[in-house]
Amino acid sequence: MSDLERYTITMPRELFESFDERIRRRGYKNRSEAIRDLVRADLVREKAARPNQRAAATITMVYDHHHHELNEKLTAMQHDFGELVVSTLHVHLDHHNCLEVLVLRGQVRRIEALADAISVLKGVKHASLTITTEGAELA
Amino acid sequence: MSDLERYTITMPRELFESFDERIRRRGYKNRSEAIRDLVRADLVREKAARPNQRAAATITMVYDHHHHELNEKLTAMQHDFGELVVSTLHVHLDHHNCLEVLVLRGQVRRIEALADAISVLKGVKHASLTITTEGAELA
Amino acid sequence: MSDLERYTITMPRELFESFDERIRRRGYKNRSEAIRDLVRADLVREKAARPNQRAAATITMVYDHHHHELNEKLTAMQHDFGELVVSTLHVHLDHHNCLEVLVLRGQVRRIEALADAISVLKGVKHASLTITTEGAELA
Amino acid sequence: MSDLERYTITMPRELFESFDERIRRRGYKNRSEAIRDLVRADLVREKAARPNQRAAATITMVYDHHHHELNEKLTAMQHDFGELVVSTLHVHLDHHNCLEVLVLRGQVRRIEALADAISVLKGVKHASLTITTEGAELA
Repeated sequence: MSDLERYTITMPRELFESFDERIRRRGYKNRSEAIRDLVRADLVREKAARPNQRAAATITMVYDHHHHELNEKLTAMQHDFGELVVSTLHVHLDHHNCLEVLVLRGQVRRIEALADAISVLKGVKHASLTITTEGAELA
Repeated sequence: MSDLERYTITMPRELFESFDERIRRRGYKNRSEAIRDLVRADLVREKAARPNQRAAATITMVYDHHHHELNEKLTAMQHDFGELVVSTLHVHLDHHNCLEVLVLRGQVRRIEALADAISVLKGVKHASLTITTEGAELA
Repeated sequence: MSDLERYTITMPRELFESFDERIRRRGYKNRSEAIRDLVRADLVREKAARPNQRAAATITMVYDHHHHELNEKLTAMQHDFGELVVSTLHVHLDHHNCLEVLVLRGQVRRIEALADAISVLKGVKHASLTITTEGAELA
Repeated sequence: MSDLERYTITMPRELFESFDERIRRRGYKNRSEAIRDLVRADLVREKAARPNQRAAATITMVYDHHHHELNEKLTAMQHDFGELVVSTLHVHLDHHNCLEVLVLRGQVRRIEALADAISVLKGVKHASLTITTEGAELA
């Protein structure tokens, strides 16, 4: 793990008090960890807004696998974006419906293009993109 | 203004470095102010998710004022929620289109009910709700 | 107002039923108006994601007007972005806190730059940007 | 698959034209499919806002598996919420960092509680919740 550094911040007393109540409700043990999480979330938000950055990501989709040629189209699409797809997880929700998660790594712009392409496929009922960190840059 | 309190936080060195680059890109002068803003934004997000809290808010809407009886309906509605509406601002976008901003104070649940009621009116092309702080609790 | 056009859409019966319950809860009178609103909201979301588009917008901010030189900085900033600012509304929340709304028209990229610049000012407790339509392109 | 129903909607001609350009940019073949997707996304958004509804969901998290006792805590937590967790997928990002996806089914309130509990764990760098449909109610 990386070296720890110390830094003194100042805040109005009332702001600390409001924040302390907030992080107690959420279950944090101390302010430092809560502040580190706010900083990390801010960095991930910035990354997601910059198309040329690299990121990890997941696409969560629910679809009806009986839909004509949908499986073929999804497979073909994952090969078109083959450099992105690290792994997939498939869950049978019921006789018709499947939930599938794709784990991706690559350029934000390409990740968004794949999510867009999936979401317009006939038979895909819902698709949602989550952009996150690859970890190393977020100590 | 309220008393300032000091607190020492620890972070991995790389996280500080990433954050320093981020806040330089955004134009912050120092880390403390950037962290205070993250804390305040987090408190506002929590407030917006709690229907029983009090908040300040704005509703931004664009509508076609030629639409039959829309002005009457908007006026009636603002009276139904009269305890909320502090002030309004009206801008003529063109011959047909008006942008109107309502400034509100009150319970989050009521604020959301008014925003919902406005957004379904015929002639209202777009309506958007922003929940913010009343200031005093966010030193 | 513009000419109305008719179009026949097909949907699985269950999807219509779910949607009918949804729009009844929201208070819509008929499906067409509810679908037009979904279409309009989708067009506004796309516009907000494209930096070179023109849009109308509001910035809602809460600040402590006792903060050193904040008023001067806010005024100077509004002049730097003078081509954007159509109108402003000011509300006194309490002895310290003001809520101010700026109504803007211009390029999305410039609108976001102004919102960013305001949010980092010391004394500004919360700032939030809403991008909307100028109306004419959203019949 | 379920029975198809037909319904005629009316819209201003310009709105149809703007929407047609939008869906061509996204890659849709026809308006009906694009409108069905807007309706489905709207129904999922409503579901996610109602704590007592059932939903499917994924939590995407990135963490440092060298962090003291994090694996034990994550495992214990998944057992505490054992009725929710359908399946998990694990990806090694690098020597330190893991990405893990949990697929969940259950009450929105419980799903959010688990996501909150995970996000505050020390060593979890980023956690993000996606709420989606179980499929059957979204024909």
